Amino acid sequence: MIVVKIGGRVVKNALDNIIEGILNYNGKLILVHGGGDIVSEVTKKMGMEPTFVTSPEGIRSRYTTREELDVYVMTMSLINKNIVTRLVTKGKSSLGITGVDGSSVIATRKKKIMILDERGKKRIIEGGYTGKISSVNSSFISSLAKLVDIIVVSPIALDAEESVPLNVDGDQMAFNVAKAVKAETLLLLSDVDGVLMNGQVIHKLTSAEAKDLSTKIGPGMNRKVLMAAESIESGVGKVIIGSGLIPNPINEALSGRGTEIS
Amino acid sequence: MIVVKIGGRVVKNALDNIIEGILNYNGKLILVHGGGDIVSEVTKKMGMEPTFVTSPEGIRSRYTTREELDVYVMTMSLINKNIVTRLVTKGKSSLGITGVDGSSVIATRKKKIMILDERGKKRIIEGGYTGKISSVNSSFISSLAKLVDIIVVSPIALDAEESVPLNVDGDQMAFNVAKAVKAETLLLLSDVDGVLMNGQVIHKLTSAEAKDLSTKIGPGMNRKVLMAAESIESGVGKVIIGSGLIPNPINEALSGRGTEIS
Repeated sequence: MIVVKIGGRVVKNALDNIIEGILNYNGKLILVHGGGDIVSEVTKKMGMEPTFVTSPEGIRSRYTTREELDVYVMTMSLINKNIVTRLVTKGKSSLGITGVDGSSVIATRKKKIMILDERGKKRIIEGGYTGKISSVNSSFISSLAKLVDIIVVSPIALDAEESVPLNVDGDQMAFNVAKAVKAETLLLLSDVDGVLMNGQVIHKLTSAEAKDLSTKIGPGMNRKVLMAAESIESGVGKVIIGSGLIPNPINEALSGRGTEIS
Repeated sequence: MIVVKIGGRVVKNALDNIIEGILNYNGKLILVHGGGDIVSEVTKKMGMEPTFVTSPEGIRSRYTTREELDVYVMTMSLINKNIVTRLVTKGKSSLGITGVDGSSVIATRKKKIMILDERGKKRIIEGGYTGKISSVNSSFISSLAKLVDIIVVSPIALDAEESVPLNVDGDQMAFNVAKAVKAETLLLLSDVDGVLMNGQVIHKLTSAEAKDLSTKIGPGMNRKVLMAAESIESGVGKVIIGSGLIPNPINEALSGRGTEIS
């Protein structure tokens, strides 16, 4: 079983590549998709202004009010169903889920978050409807994987305490699912070619090297690399960070393009 | 296995009843939900005007353009995930699907439809993204029903020919699913107490009586009663038409409230 995460920009600009890549891949696959840019578009169409916050570590993320949570669930579900439609039409048995379905991914709402305000000062605010994943029901996901070849997962988890769906980070969703099903490979496909050092893609990293490197690179990639190292330690075979914008992206990444952490 | 259909007005005004009703019901259940009124609200929020057409038989239905199809899929998915969230939080194992997932419900787009125009004249127009169900993958649905107690189904089917999801009528979805899984009972819960004759609920009808009666009642109920008779002939145990607005609606309908066609 491999787990593939595609970022929001890949969903928006290169979904054809990904569909083609999945059709060319033989085997079971769990696809976790993003879609943030499209969520922002729909939010605006519905007369709201998307807001983003920056953490003290410099990571920018969507701030999700209760109203925007509905838009988030709607948009991610539309993306999910569009992907499933295209796959099943081409003969790949596929099913789309969220973490709510079958209580498959449980998260806890971040009640308070620390942000950097517009003057760069740390401030604690109410966390909105964003969650941190606490557990994955791997037996449910494995049962579904017996029924279909491709499971398409939206980055939405269940907050069982407050009985709401929650916006969760797509990378975190992919890492947690990959760890839970002990995936042989986790592919993170976004709009970069891999982990870069002086403009060059680093082709191989051990998890120790990845941890070490994570302190020297930018905030988005930093987090991916750290989570990659941690997943290796939790039983995932390897993590590959590569491009979703090239033709046949899944087989390309599996055959050595991008950065492999193992 | 029972199949329960809840109409759009029940979704909008009495979802608490339905959730409570499902929690009080012991056994496997497939819930097909509507949501037309909420689709119209979201369509307007997104700056479009929902349009409806009337068939020569007097049935009014949503006209779905390509843009509105996206809104339809988004809104129905939000309703679906909200229902699943509430059920799983209360400990009922549940999964939400559309007919696209696992190619479970296939439909054909109505390329041309006949409508009554504003002057009451018949006219043929392009059909938009509304479909007529052609088949149900009962083995896939039965496999899912082994994994969870409640399957929540949105009225969205797969058009494999044009590779798009399609808006399908919720009653038709419920009838087709009930026939495919040979449901012992199909409950149609809406905002009426049953089939009325001179203001009184008719409690029992044979399928022959139902067919006969269908020519004497209004266009919406007419169609429900005809489809009910047809499902009985296709192996569904019985069909009950009843109210979703009363407390504990599922057990109430099962214990004799409403109109039973068998």
